[in-house]
Amino acid sequence: MTRPFDTVLVANRGEIALRVIRTCREMGIRTVAVHSTADRDSAAVRAADTAVQIGPGPSKRSYSFAPAIVEAALATGAQAVHPGYGFLSEDPDFAEICAAGGLVFIGPRPEVMAPLGDKATARRMMSDAGLPVLPGSRRTADSAAEVQEVAANIGYPLIIKAAAGGGGRGMAVVRQPRDLMPTYRATRSAAQAVFGDGRVYLERFCDRARHVEVQILADEHGNVVHLGERDCSVQRRHQKLVEESPAPNLPAGLADEMAAAAVLGARAVGYTGAGTFEFLVHEGGFAFMEINCRIQVEHPVTEMVTGIDLVREQIRVAAGLPLSVRQEDVRPSGVAVECRVNAEDPARGFAPCPGVLAEFEPPGGPFVRVDTHAFTGWRIPAEYDSLLAKVIAWGADRDQALDRMDRALHEIRVRGVRTTTGVLRDVLADEVFRAAEHTTTLLDELSGTDRRAG
Amino acid sequence: MTRPFDTVLVANRGEIALRVIRTCREMGIRTVAVHSTADRDSAAVRAADTAVQIGPGPSKRSYSFAPAIVEAALATGAQAVHPGYGFLSEDPDFAEICAAGGLVFIGPRPEVMAPLGDKATARRMMSDAGLPVLPGSRRTADSAAEVQEVAANIGYPLIIKAAAGGGGRGMAVVRQPRDLMPTYRATRSAAQAVFGDGRVYLERFCDRARHVEVQILADEHGNVVHLGERDCSVQRRHQKLVEESPAPNLPAGLADEMAAAAVLGARAVGYTGAGTFEFLVHEGGFAFMEINCRIQVEHPVTEMVTGIDLVREQIRVAAGLPLSVRQEDVRPSGVAVECRVNAEDPARGFAPCPGVLAEFEPPGGPFVRVDTHAFTGWRIPAEYDSLLAKVIAWGADRDQALDRMDRALHEIRVRGVRTTTGVLRDVLADEVFRAAEHTTTLLDELSGTDRRAG
Repeated sequence: MTRPFDTVLVANRGEIALRVIRTCREMGIRTVAVHSTADRDSAAVRAADTAVQIGPGPSKRSYSFAPAIVEAALATGAQAVHPGYGFLSEDPDFAEICAAGGLVFIGPRPEVMAPLGDKATARRMMSDAGLPVLPGSRRTADSAAEVQEVAANIGYPLIIKAAAGGGGRGMAVVRQPRDLMPTYRATRSAAQAVFGDGRVYLERFCDRARHVEVQILADEHGNVVHLGERDCSVQRRHQKLVEESPAPNLPAGLADEMAAAAVLGARAVGYTGAGTFEFLVHEGGFAFMEINCRIQVEHPVTEMVTGIDLVREQIRVAAGLPLSVRQEDVRPSGVAVECRVNAEDPARGFAPCPGVLAEFEPPGGPFVRVDTHAFTGWRIPAEYDSLLAKVIAWGADRDQALDRMDRALHEIRVRGVRTTTGVLRDVLADEVFRAAEHTTTLLDELSGTDRRAG
Repeated sequence: MTRPFDTVLVANRGEIALRVIRTCREMGIRTVAVHSTADRDSAAVRAADTAVQIGPGPSKRSYSFAPAIVEAALATGAQAVHPGYGFLSEDPDFAEICAAGGLVFIGPRPEVMAPLGDKATARRMMSDAGLPVLPGSRRTADSAAEVQEVAANIGYPLIIKAAAGGGGRGMAVVRQPRDLMPTYRATRSAAQAVFGDGRVYLERFCDRARHVEVQILADEHGNVVHLGERDCSVQRRHQKLVEESPAPNLPAGLADEMAAAAVLGARAVGYTGAGTFEFLVHEGGFAFMEINCRIQVEHPVTEMVTGIDLVREQIRVAAGLPLSVRQEDVRPSGVAVECRVNAEDPARGFAPCPGVLAEFEPPGGPFVRVDTHAFTGWRIPAEYDSLLAKVIAWGADRDQALDRMDRALHEIRVRGVRTTTGVLRDVLADEVFRAAEHTTTLLDELSGTDRRAG
C-alpha cells in the first residue's frame, strides 16, 4: 500500500498518542509528537520520529492550544493531524484551523462535527432521522419557565445535561420536583465554568439502564459500516472503568437494531471517519444518547473482536481512501474486555496519585493486549487524567475473557503509586457482573468496592 | 467449567513456565513452579502460587532431574505435571515416573512418545501409515557397510541425523561420497556425547526446502483436529528464528494435504495431547520429518490465528476431558508471525549474552503479544538458552503482520545485553522473505545479517 501521508502530527499525549504513533509506523508514516513541558520524557515522545515542545503543563496552553499545534505541524512538514480523544479532538474550530493551514484533520468534517457536538442538537437530529430518543426537550431549556414546562411533560426522575458536555461530564439527576430548579442552576453554572457554555437540556432518566455504544466507520465514498457494539455500563461517576464487546445478555435482536440505527444516523448527517453512537438500553428498548466524533478510549475491544485497526481506517478515510472493509467482511469473533487501570487511590475517594512509578511491569501472554504509556521510572504528571494502562483480554467466550482479564490484572506490577486494580478485580469477581445483569449503578452497589474504599 | 486439576506443577523455566502458569491461573488451577538456584528470582517463580527449589543451576541436576521434580509435586499436592518444551518434555521415562508417583503427565502416553522420540522409528511408522517420506534408511544405519549401501541408494546430497536428536540438533549434510564416512563417524560421536545414543539414519537432503509443520490436538475420546500449519523456514543453524501461520506461498492444496497427513499419522499411533508434525516442503511436494510430542516455542502464532489456547487443551486432554473444539470450529483468521528475540551478540557469532538487564520494556499495543520472562533488573543466567522474549504480531494479511512486527521490534527497549533484534528486522525487510520465496538457507544468504555479524 502506498502510504496515505508522509508525516502525521499526533495532537495528544499518553496512551492514545502512543497508540496512534504505532499504527502510523506500521503504515510507514513518519510521526510528530507534540508535548508539554510536563511530558518531555513521555513514551509518546520517545516513540515518535520527531517531538516538538508546544507549551507548559496546563493543557489549555499546550494540548488544547490550537495555534501551537498547527505551528508545530507546519514546522515539521506534517500533512495531517490526529487529535486522539479529549483535548481538541471534537473541536470543529480546531478542524477549521487545521484546514486553513493546509492540514488534514483526521476526523469528521467540521460542519458535521459542530452540530453533533451540541448534544441537544444531536439528539434532535437523530430523532428526526428516526432514531429512538428518551422523552425530553427538543432543544436546550434556556429559561426557568422552559425547564419547568419540559420537566412537567417528561416526569421524574429526569436528568439535566450540558449541551456542550459529553464523555460523562456535565450531567445531574433530579428525582423530585423540589430539586429541579436548584439542580438546573447548578448544572448551568458548572457547564458554563467547565465548557464555557451553560446551555442544558432535559431528558427522562432511567435508573436501571445499560450503556451500550455502536462503533461505526464511514468514508467519503458513501460506505458506512458498523463494527458491532460495546457495553460500557461499569462506570464510576459516569466514567467508564470496564468495557466489553459484544454487549452481553441483550434482548434478542437489540444489538442489530442499534447497529442499524447507528448506520442510519451516520448516513443522515454525512458522517466520515470513526464514530461512536452511544445508546441507553432500558427495559423498553434503547434510546440514542450522543455521538462521539473521535476514537474512543475503549476502541481496543472492538479491534480485538473484529481484527480491524480503527486508527488505520481513520487515517485512510482522512486521506480520501475507501474503508478497507465492507460490512460483510466484519465478522466479530469471541469476547474482548478492557479494564482501565488508573493511578488513583480507592481508599481516598479515587483521588489521582501522581508520582514516580518505582516499578511498572505490564501483563502479557496469550490473548492479552496492553495499551500503556507507563514505564518504570516515569513520573506521572499531576496535570492530566489518571489513566495508567488499558488492559484488554480476549476470550472465546465471556467467562474465558473475564478469567483472562483477572489473570492479567493479577500479573501487573506497579510500585510507587496506588491503582484501581483491586477495584477492577472486585468487579470481575462480582456475581451480578459475571451474570451480565449489571447496570450503570453496579459500582455503587458493589460491596467489595466499599470494603476496599472504606 | 469445573477445573480439571486443583494443582499443576510446571516442570520448566523461562517464558514457557510463565506461559503455562498463565493458563492454569485462568482455569482456576493452583500452580507450583520448580526452579534451580540460578532461577530463584525468575518471573515464573514470582507468578506461581508456590515455588520449590529443586537443585543447582545445571539442568541435569534440576530441570532434567526427574526425582526432584516428582518429589516437589508430591510435597505440594500437585496432581499433574506440565513439562513445557525441552528438558524432560519428551522423555517417556519421566512420564512413566510421574505415573508411578500417581501424577498425571501432561503430554502423550509414554508408550506413544517412546517410539516417536526415536526419529528413525517415527519415520518408518509414518511411512507405514501412508505419509510421504524422503528416500532414506528404513531404520538406523549401525555399521559402515549399511551406511554405504543406503547412501548409494539415495544419492547426494544426503543428511545424517541422530535418531535421538530433534529440534534441529544432531544432523549433518553430506554433499559428496568422500565426506560420507567422516561425517557419519563425527555425527555418531556427537550424538553419543549429546544424547547418550549414537544411532543415526540417512535421508535425501533438499537444498532449497521449507520447513512447514502442522499443529494437531487429540483427546482420549478419538477426536483429532489440526490447527493449520506454521512456516518455520527462517533458521540459523537449524534453530528457528521467525515463524508464521499460515505458511505463505504454498502450492495450492498442499497445506490441506499436510494437515490431512498429520491427522492420519496422529490417528495411526493413537496420539493424545498437543503435537506437531514437521514436514519438509520441496519442489516435488512434502515429506514427513519428525513429530514433536510437546508444546512448541512457536505455538503462539497458531493461537493468534485460531483463538485456541493450546495449553488449555493440553490440560483438558490430560484430565480426560474432550477437546473443546471440533474441526469445523477451527477457522483460522489472518496471519500471525513470531520473532524470537535472543540475548545474543550477532557481532560475535551469536554468542549468548548472559548478564543483568539494565532495562527491559516489551512492545505493546494493537495485535501484538509478548511472551517473556524478562524484566528490568533481571540477571540472565548463563546456564540456559538465550531466549529473551517471543514477540508475536497478528495482521489481517501477511504484510500487515510483518509491518506490525517491525513496529513492535522497533519499540522493544533492552539495555545491558545484546540481542538479535537487528537481525530479525533485517529478515523482515528482506525482499525474498517479504515475497515468501525464502527457504531454510535464507539467513546464510541474507547480506544484512552478514553485515551485522561481520
